[in-house]
Amino acid sequence: MERLSEETRGTLLSPLIDAGWSVQPDRDAIEKTYKFADFADAFGWMTKAAIWAEKWDHHPEWFNVYGKVKVVLTTHDVDGLSTLDIKLARKMDGLAE
Amino acid sequence: MERLSEETRGTLLSPLIDAGWSVQPDRDAIEKTYKFADFADAFGWMTKAAIWAEKWDHHPEWFNVYGKVKVVLTTHDVDGLSTLDIKLARKMDGLAE
Repeated sequence: MERLSEETRGTLLSPLIDAGWSVQPDRDAIEKTYKFADFADAFGWMTKAAIWAEKWDHHPEWFNVYGKVKVVLTTHDVDGLSTLDIKLARKMDGLAE
Repeated sequence: MERLSEETRGTLLSPLIDAGWSVQPDRDAIEKTYKFADFADAFGWMTKAAIWAEKWDHHPEWFNVYGKVKVVLTTHDVDGLSTLDIKLARKMDGLAE
C-alpha cells in the first residue's frame, strides 16, 4: 500500500469531491457526513459498510448520532490517503444509494 | 421522561463512575471509552448496543475507530441526563463484559 501520488490524486479524488467528500484541512484524510432517515437506517448502513471494511482490513473513523454518520478515511500505515480510502469511500457511497 | 433530580443523581451515577463513566465538564451528559481487541469485536458490541438503543428509542452519540468506541449519553428531550441514560449505560457495560 502506498500513499496516493500527486499524479493520481486529483483524478481519483475529483469524483468523490463531487459526491460530497472533502479533504480535511489539517490531515491527509477525506470526510463525509451521511444523513439517513433515522437511527435504524443509519446503523443498518454502518453495518453493511463495517462488513466491507473488515473484509478489506481497512477501517473508518466514524461518528454516529441518530440518523447522521460522519466518516473520516485515511490510511494510517502510509500516514495519508491510499487507494484503499478511495475504494472504501466509493463502496460507502454505493451502499448509501 | 424527566431530568434526574439532585436526590437520585448521585445514587444512580456513582456505580457508573466506578465503572469508568464520567460526567462531561460542559454538558449534562456521561461518556465512556470502551476498548476492544479489534474492529470486529468493537462493531459486534456496537451492534448489540444498537439493538437495545433502538428498542428503547434512546440513542447514543458514539465514535468508533478500530477497537475503540467512545460513547456519550444524554437525553435531548430533557436537555440533560435521565433514567434512560442510566439504563442504557448499564446495558452497554453488561454487553461489554
